[in-house]
Amino acid sequence: MKETEEITQALLEFRNKRDWEQFHNPKDLALAISIESAELLELFLWRNADEANTVKVKEELADIFSFAFLLAEKYRFNVKDIVLDKIKINATKYPIDKAKGSAKKYNEL
Amino acid sequence: MKETEEITQALLEFRNKRDWEQFHNPKDLALAISIESAELLELFLWRNADEANTVKVKEELADIFSFAFLLAEKYRFNVKDIVLDKIKINATKYPIDKAKGSAKKYNEL
Amino acid sequence: MKETEEITQALLEFRNKRDWEQFHNPKDLALAISIESAELLELFLWRNADEANTVKVKEELADIFSFAFLLAEKYRFNVKDIVLDKIKINATKYPIDKAKGSAKKYNEL
Amino acid sequence: MKETEEITQALLEFRNKRDWEQFHNPKDLALAISIESAELLELFLWRNADEANTVKVKEELADIFSFAFLLAEKYRFNVKDIVLDKIKINATKYPIDKAKGSAKKYNEL
Repeated sequence: MKETEEITQALLEFRNKRDWEQFHNPKDLALAISIESAELLELFLWRNADEANTVKVKEELADIFSFAFLLAEKYRFNVKDIVLDKIKINATKYPIDKAKGSAKKYNEL
Repeated sequence: MKETEEITQALLEFRNKRDWEQFHNPKDLALAISIESAELLELFLWRNADEANTVKVKEELADIFSFAFLLAEKYRFNVKDIVLDKIKINATKYPIDKAKGSAKKYNEL
Repeated sequence: MKETEEITQALLEFRNKRDWEQFHNPKDLALAISIESAELLELFLWRNADEANTVKVKEELADIFSFAFLLAEKYRFNVKDIVLDKIKINATKYPIDKAKGSAKKYNEL
Repeated sequence: MKETEEITQALLEFRNKRDWEQFHNPKDLALAISIESAELLELFLWRNADEANTVKVKEELADIFSFAFLLAEKYRFNVKDIVLDKIKINATKYPIDKAKGSAKKYNEL
């Protein structure tokens, strides 16, 4: 089995044992990703960029991945495919000659 | 090569061609995840749970995965390992007999 | 009329002319606050703390205030009262002698 | 003293007693608003729109207002003015005849 399938299967097994699919509609999964992202962000609040607690970063990032994989599963997205597809889209939004070394958004390049 | 490595390699290649590593400190990567999560959330705003545009969900979710994989790479986390580890932690926070069918947070169970 | 009432009245007038109350349930208003907060955050992404565009900060912050005032109105909260009440709660969570000069969260003090 | 000044003064007094101004740069204040917004959002997670705990909504909304007022103070924005100014901008983005009864974003109207 491929890695992303293994991850998804482990998450579904955990969820289904708890009968939680009933709560996991796409909108609330999107909320969950935002909430977990803010918990990650909190580890950096009032701190320098490299001062977050690594163990906690690991856990909060794992939570983000978990809900992101569950939302991908809802839509039957293949995670590798959607990331590679998005890289292609971004390559046209951020051509190397214009974007190199710049932090500007594509609509300001 | 394993899938999560392939994804990470593709993201690093895209980034390095644009000389963007200088911007990708852990704190700003965490900001980026939060920002992309909110763009996903916006697809559901003022709508029912299943009324988001699927193509846009795919793109915003891909953005979240991209920054999450880049942050994992910063810390040398193996994505599969951290998700499986977190499932174990959550299994103790949410024992099946207490959590089954409940949407409560672990500290309210 | 007091300032917070004036602000609320102006927001309600804008909303009601557009017949938008139907969309403004508390959950979606909370989503809107999160989304606007992320738009504010984006102005600081990949930048130093004082490099955001002031005109855009003004607009995004105004959007956050707008949805926050509208949510407060839904619950009939008086904005001044709830902030002053929260300051009192925080004063007990963050006693001066322990919290002075520290960026730690109350449960870590 | 006007209400928004009273709120700001109370927040500054609380902060200054704790010597926290050193942490309150604009970027971290923006992070704080996002984090508090997500804590508000969490009260609605896996729930219907009207099932959040009112006492907790009051507290989380107060936290959002607090950091929003503190960020406004950093930039010397008058809260009433910036909201009223933004309403004018939104009135041109959302003309009544096009926007009435529609949840669409201005660029899709």
